[in-house]
Amino acid sequence: MKRPTIADIARQAGVSKGAVSYALNGQPGVSESTRQRILAIAREIGFNPNSAARALSGATANAVGLALRRPARTLGVEPFFMELISGVEAELSARSYALTLQIVADAQTEIAVYRRWWGERRIDGVFLCDLRVDDERVPALEELNLPTVVIGGPGHTGRLASIWADEEAALVETVEYLVALGHRRITRIGGLPGLLHTEIRTEAFTEVCRRLGLDQTRTVPSDYTGEEGARVTRRLLSSAERPTALIYDNDVMAIAGLAVAQEMGLSVPADLSIVAWDDSPLCQLVHPPLTALSRDIPAYGAHAARRLLAAIAGDPITSYQDETAHLTPRGSTAPPRPTPPPTPSAI
Amino acid sequence: MKRPTIADIARQAGVSKGAVSYALNGQPGVSESTRQRILAIAREIGFNPNSAARALSGATANAVGLALRRPARTLGVEPFFMELISGVEAELSARSYALTLQIVADAQTEIAVYRRWWGERRIDGVFLCDLRVDDERVPALEELNLPTVVIGGPGHTGRLASIWADEEAALVETVEYLVALGHRRITRIGGLPGLLHTEIRTEAFTEVCRRLGLDQTRTVPSDYTGEEGARVTRRLLSSAERPTALIYDNDVMAIAGLAVAQEMGLSVPADLSIVAWDDSPLCQLVHPPLTALSRDIPAYGAHAARRLLAAIAGDPITSYQDETAHLTPRGSTAPPRPTPPPTPSAI
Repeated sequence: MKRPTIADIARQAGVSKGAVSYALNGQPGVSESTRQRILAIAREIGFNPNSAARALSGATANAVGLALRRPARTLGVEPFFMELISGVEAELSARSYALTLQIVADAQTEIAVYRRWWGERRIDGVFLCDLRVDDERVPALEELNLPTVVIGGPGHTGRLASIWADEEAALVETVEYLVALGHRRITRIGGLPGLLHTEIRTEAFTEVCRRLGLDQTRTVPSDYTGEEGARVTRRLLSSAERPTALIYDNDVMAIAGLAVAQEMGLSVPADLSIVAWDDSPLCQLVHPPLTALSRDIPAYGAHAARRLLAAIAGDPITSYQDETAHLTPRGSTAPPRPTPPPTPSAI
Repeated sequence: MKRPTIADIARQAGVSKGAVSYALNGQPGVSESTRQRILAIAREIGFNPNSAARALSGATANAVGLALRRPARTLGVEPFFMELISGVEAELSARSYALTLQIVADAQTEIAVYRRWWGERRIDGVFLCDLRVDDERVPALEELNLPTVVIGGPGHTGRLASIWADEEAALVETVEYLVALGHRRITRIGGLPGLLHTEIRTEAFTEVCRRLGLDQTRTVPSDYTGEEGARVTRRLLSSAERPTALIYDNDVMAIAGLAVAQEMGLSVPADLSIVAWDDSPLCQLVHPPLTALSRDIPAYGAHAARRLLAAIAGDPITSYQDETAHLTPRGSTAPPRPTPPPTPSAI
């Protein structure tokens, strides 16, 4: 099994390799009927002018890279990345760009992958995901001069352009809504500490709870897995002063939390309200369907791709604020049960 | 923004381009200290020997391709493909191969993508997914002589090598288990008609039900989405002779079905047993956790990758039967409620 070459075409057409080269490059030296015959054979056996040769001549690789540093098995469960990739893909394939995907174990490996991809001309640009506070990948990419769009922010992106959403506004909207329903004991099950968007949400949660005078609120960190979401929820719902509302930093943990409430005989939303961050079709598959923070993730990916392609084309690009997630109330949120009046003996 | 070249290294090192070339290729002509300085600069600015030049010289592209023909938004929800990709990735990155991913709209586009990838030397081989009965992509790939591993089968793969699992055995095990529990009214919510594994399961279901003398069984086709899984389930559970057990062809539909049962006030498993095909972490996040057909999807992807890399290396590969999915009983299956004894007046 080998790729078709000019020699294969020449053999099938019964002409010299030089004649094939003339025909393919539109140069004189072969008759029009021979040219047509050679082109037909080239198409038939799947021959195309070589992208390697074009890359050498300074043209682009027509591919962009995406390295993901998440445990491979987690990636399969959380819809976020596949939805993002589907949006990226829609833009790329319209312009005949390919997406090169690699799952990496740590930041050093990720940086080495970027270096190799760029050095070997495998890609023309990259997306940087899961931005961290003081992210070591940012100076590495700046140094490579590799066209980059950071998916995350604001800030912590150095000279790199980014696309980001206002996490703080979405979080404040959620807490204010729960408080308006009558909740005061609210716990947030946060994502991986160190990720910038996790830190932004944690700070915003602390701040809005302080402003609203809520003193029985807190954030519990997690690793985004359903297993940990279930464990944390079980512990929270077993405590003496159990929360009446839970905000989860992803959909998978929220679904696991709903199952734990059902397992413990609590009714959602009567005994417990649940809000999921990053609405996904999963949130609507469960019963009751989950109140969630919704935004169009494929569109977010498509915007990122358009900006990266612009950067590759040499257009100056700046950072861009995408749509803020909005609260979509469904069946998992309601006012908490009224506290029973104190019994006479307790007065 | 441009890629670092030999000229950039030469300028920074204050030497000629020839000296850089000598240093990078380990040839004599530069002192050891200059060589070390040049190598340090090359590393620092991200210079690597050019893969394009290597491809021209007949070496491989060090990339394999995967084209997926599914609505982009469905891909995000169903864990199967990301789990498969994570297994493929683990093998590929160990050998410094990249994965090129493209989402396509139809078979003709998919074939055109293969033709372009192969002609332009972007990839050394491909995986073919979602094999159909009489699949037009098979003869197209045979004609291209492109190293291919079909993920699916058996049969319908022409001269292409495939990796496949015994769908029939898994289905028979499931039906026999439900019948042993006492179920006789069993409905299967099948996947997309036309896909080979759907057809194999449908035929096996008909056959095993006939053998066991079950006359109240049938397969209802679906499109794999949770929305359709919910709609079909609602219709089935509203019928006069509602089934006591449902087998779903994917996890997402099974989870949607569980929610519909809860919404309609039915208890799972007392009123309705549920089995999900292709166990995933999602199946264990819901309450009750779903009885499912389990197999190691990342391992399946890894096996497929190893065989494709062998084919690319020129080793002869044959079709390979992977692990058969086994039934993992969890809380969603139980004997059906006993039929109430006929009342005296009815005798």
